[in-house]
Amino acid sequence: MTARLHAHQYGKAETRVVRIVRDTPRHEIRDLNVSTVLRGDFAAAYLDGDQSAVLPTDTQKNMSFVFAKTHGIASPEQFAILLGRHFVEHVEPVSGARVDVQEYAWVRAVVDGAEHDHTWVRSGQEVRTASVTVDDSGTTVIGGLRDLTVLKSTASEFRGFLRDEFTTLVDADDRVLATSLTVQWRYAGTDLDYDATYAVVRAVILSTFAAEHSLALQQTLWQMGEAVLDAVPQVVEVRIAAPNKHHFLADLSPFGLPNPGEVFFAADRPYGLIEAVVVREGAPDAGDAWIRSVGAP
Amino acid sequence: MTARLHAHQYGKAETRVVRIVRDTPRHEIRDLNVSTVLRGDFAAAYLDGDQSAVLPTDTQKNMSFVFAKTHGIASPEQFAILLGRHFVEHVEPVSGARVDVQEYAWVRAVVDGAEHDHTWVRSGQEVRTASVTVDDSGTTVIGGLRDLTVLKSTASEFRGFLRDEFTTLVDADDRVLATSLTVQWRYAGTDLDYDATYAVVRAVILSTFAAEHSLALQQTLWQMGEAVLDAVPQVVEVRIAAPNKHHFLADLSPFGLPNPGEVFFAADRPYGLIEAVVVREGAPDAGDAWIRSVGAP
Amino acid sequence: MTARLHAHQYGKAETRVVRIVRDTPRHEIRDLNVSTVLRGDFAAAYLDGDQSAVLPTDTQKNMSFVFAKTHGIASPEQFAILLGRHFVEHVEPVSGARVDVQEYAWVRAVVDGAEHDHTWVRSGQEVRTASVTVDDSGTTVIGGLRDLTVLKSTASEFRGFLRDEFTTLVDADDRVLATSLTVQWRYAGTDLDYDATYAVVRAVILSTFAAEHSLALQQTLWQMGEAVLDAVPQVVEVRIAAPNKHHFLADLSPFGLPNPGEVFFAADRPYGLIEAVVVREGAPDAGDAWIRSVGAP
Amino acid sequence: MTARLHAHQYGKAETRVVRIVRDTPRHEIRDLNVSTVLRGDFAAAYLDGDQSAVLPTDTQKNMSFVFAKTHGIASPEQFAILLGRHFVEHVEPVSGARVDVQEYAWVRAVVDGAEHDHTWVRSGQEVRTASVTVDDSGTTVIGGLRDLTVLKSTASEFRGFLRDEFTTLVDADDRVLATSLTVQWRYAGTDLDYDATYAVVRAVILSTFAAEHSLALQQTLWQMGEAVLDAVPQVVEVRIAAPNKHHFLADLSPFGLPNPGEVFFAADRPYGLIEAVVVREGAPDAGDAWIRSVGAP
Repeated sequence: MTARLHAHQYGKAETRVVRIVRDTPRHEIRDLNVSTVLRGDFAAAYLDGDQSAVLPTDTQKNMSFVFAKTHGIASPEQFAILLGRHFVEHVEPVSGARVDVQEYAWVRAVVDGAEHDHTWVRSGQEVRTASVTVDDSGTTVIGGLRDLTVLKSTASEFRGFLRDEFTTLVDADDRVLATSLTVQWRYAGTDLDYDATYAVVRAVILSTFAAEHSLALQQTLWQMGEAVLDAVPQVVEVRIAAPNKHHFLADLSPFGLPNPGEVFFAADRPYGLIEAVVVREGAPDAGDAWIRSVGAP
Repeated sequence: MTARLHAHQYGKAETRVVRIVRDTPRHEIRDLNVSTVLRGDFAAAYLDGDQSAVLPTDTQKNMSFVFAKTHGIASPEQFAILLGRHFVEHVEPVSGARVDVQEYAWVRAVVDGAEHDHTWVRSGQEVRTASVTVDDSGTTVIGGLRDLTVLKSTASEFRGFLRDEFTTLVDADDRVLATSLTVQWRYAGTDLDYDATYAVVRAVILSTFAAEHSLALQQTLWQMGEAVLDAVPQVVEVRIAAPNKHHFLADLSPFGLPNPGEVFFAADRPYGLIEAVVVREGAPDAGDAWIRSVGAP
Repeated sequence: MTARLHAHQYGKAETRVVRIVRDTPRHEIRDLNVSTVLRGDFAAAYLDGDQSAVLPTDTQKNMSFVFAKTHGIASPEQFAILLGRHFVEHVEPVSGARVDVQEYAWVRAVVDGAEHDHTWVRSGQEVRTASVTVDDSGTTVIGGLRDLTVLKSTASEFRGFLRDEFTTLVDADDRVLATSLTVQWRYAGTDLDYDATYAVVRAVILSTFAAEHSLALQQTLWQMGEAVLDAVPQVVEVRIAAPNKHHFLADLSPFGLPNPGEVFFAADRPYGLIEAVVVREGAPDAGDAWIRSVGAP
Repeated sequence: MTARLHAHQYGKAETRVVRIVRDTPRHEIRDLNVSTVLRGDFAAAYLDGDQSAVLPTDTQKNMSFVFAKTHGIASPEQFAILLGRHFVEHVEPVSGARVDVQEYAWVRAVVDGAEHDHTWVRSGQEVRTASVTVDDSGTTVIGGLRDLTVLKSTASEFRGFLRDEFTTLVDADDRVLATSLTVQWRYAGTDLDYDATYAVVRAVILSTFAAEHSLALQQTLWQMGEAVLDAVPQVVEVRIAAPNKHHFLADLSPFGLPNPGEVFFAADRPYGLIEAVVVREGAPDAGDAWIRSVGAP
């Protein structure tokens, strides 16, 4: 038997960096959770326990704090690009780096009708994500969000599906459609205003979900992906995973009550899980940009 | 040895009820997590396995759905009052009921600058809570919220504290203060516009946190409690539990960098936990209103 | 309006202390999550922001590490007693202390049939808990466990319950009974072998659950409580909270299949929640021993 | 602009199936969390909202319960094979299926020294996983586990690593090494005793972790992977992801105390994350076996 070390990578996960800008009385805040991964030939560390090519994960953590000071955090994408390029360009054994960032949004507290200068409330809506891969094919940036939970109380149906001997579901003409969206979009190029494009993509996703009649969650995902590509020329690929958070009509017939789409039981598990990848014709190759983990699919 | 059955109670926890009002094209939504508890003499069920006085928890669940249809959900407090009184007044063995409700907020999706009629985004800020106790002393209502996470980047200090041989902490003149608030407030009376008072209490908490200079989280909690009592005459007691979500200044000195309150590490554990109970002079007795569980403190 | 500071307390929550004993090649490990609370007159900190009576929570954290070194961790109960008494006896403004400890169990890895000297696997069964209150009435110790999940596939029924117009549940002659137990037991006295009594209580709980036919979860809780009091003379009170983790029989009738207690759907929410407090006749008063939080019931 | 639907898939996630075998008084239990995914040409559902090729996820859920009845659950792997092949062979539009199963282990309660016939305690150690892909290249089975948390209190070091200007970490000669393992192993062939091989792989992982001196977590992962390949001829690839759950030595020097590897602070975040893929020379191609999600990397 001959075993062989195939893919490998290592890094520091979930460094929680909060950056305050206090140059004026009106402070600014950015709140990140940073995970860095280094790729290259670290085989000696695995095979022989030789660490001479291994930059400690502790150092990677330090870098997040240092760069937050020296460069600030213009956006999660730009912060990830900075870190990823630093590792590839300045740490000799590193041939590739992957940086995943989550950003938690804070909204200014409103006091007497005015936004406060140095107080915020954490917004619990979606978490913004950025995933940057730097290697010899260049820098690839993926923007994203997760946990954006949306619901529409009408304009959604699910009918005419395939039936077999194990099918008991009946057609739904008018149902509640709810999901918690995970969306990621790949950019072509890196010279972008990421905060601005994030706002556009988010708005397009929400307005598509709201405005389009849904024949199935599948159709809604496609419409979202198509609308994002349409709205943002720099986006070349959109990946969406959407759990169908079932809202079952409560059965009130034992109590002599009708229930015309008014009272629902929000179920936890199981849930449908629908996925779609929508690409722009002629999109450049993604390289390794979608590979986050080699050990844990 | 003689064992004796002391306190006991039972109920249905976490019934997820979503109510849509669709009488007009502009739908309304309320999204609750309802837990009901029945109190009374159910000793026979424990001692002898005799269920003749035990209304099943499944029936309690049914009631949430039935009342959502027949009465609607005017507010979490009023829905809890309805349920609690029903059990006490219409289920013979029940002498007391406790209903705890969590409400998840949904905000309307904005499409082309206008709020959408039937599409919402789930707000991830605080969860609103209501806890109603009905027994022979009457009905007591406690409003509340949890997971309201706030942060101020200045106007907070912690100095002049008690020092002993095990103290290594140094004075902080200007620190980040962050916490995730759990606040509950007890009302006198039940004839209230609970949605309106909720909005007032929430606004008062936030503006106090923002506007008042903090010498300690303890002081801030007191100020919040006092301000709530001041703003809402019907509130007679405020209970607050606030974790001190430590934001430690990153030590950048090994890299020759200053860090004047700009880069922080957001720590998970351990955390300070500060609690305060503020009451209005002359407040009526709370009875059992603060007792949620008899078996799990 | 006059607001008044009523109850208050503060402390350090969730200090994660791991203690290795390495005096011989066969190491020992104890892994704790320690939360300390100080009580007394700290009103000045709340009302005036005066910290001169406030021992920082950071110091409380330090104490956990110091005592783990100087005294070791004989048991979670004894470690909590040490800490609680230290605060009351050696920190002047403190009149009462509450220490809550969770212990995570590690079992030795087995290599070639033998227990390994310095390698463990974390047991994911129950978390052991200890809650100690020290004040002018003395020291009161509460042992406990949580997340002990048990299931029996027969010898459980639920019949003859109260029915009203909203009841749809039918009698169950033979059902799956599953729960995740939270149990706490109060000791009289403090001179005990806590590890030994823990093992006895745990064994009694499990054997009662297994061996006794259950007419209802209520009955099972009572039987557990009674059995614990019977088995351990030093225990004077037992509190149990038990969610009824429903396992619903899958309806296979649409597919022409019987289902005589073989295939179940394990539901998440809602769930029944049953509680019982069983006391020994003549038990001493509990004082404040069951009060963990004053701000967050 | 032309958008194109690229990869897509859909299914039912987290169906909780519990199967009791009660043919004799000594019952057996298997407790699964089943997620099924269907692949094929479902473009019409996305592009046109045409569901005629879409077998509802509700039907997929039904199948889990039906097969649990008709075929039983011999092992999570075999159950996943059954389901996957059913979808590919009997649902016309389906060209590929992916089934992911988590199994929760239950251990028999011990009463009076004997294992009980119908009562179990849920083991909280690792969750067992199985991932089966069925498509035109055949059936590929991946076994696995996650959340196997292990710790060794000595025989671990980390020295001689790469240093740059941002490195502050110092060499560790003797440290605590702890991790929570996620391991997956790909089998060649499908005619296996999966329960037996699972037990072997688990034992090999634990004994390697315990017995081998560790120069780095990287080395330990490699040793585990190599040992698994060595021990089980049918395994052709092992993937491991291991967080380095840091246990930092508590600094007791301010209190004049030494700390020779005795008292540690168990940190939450950040953590190192080390990954390795170890393959057998000549292993067959994995096809799509490692692709779980197309929409959410």
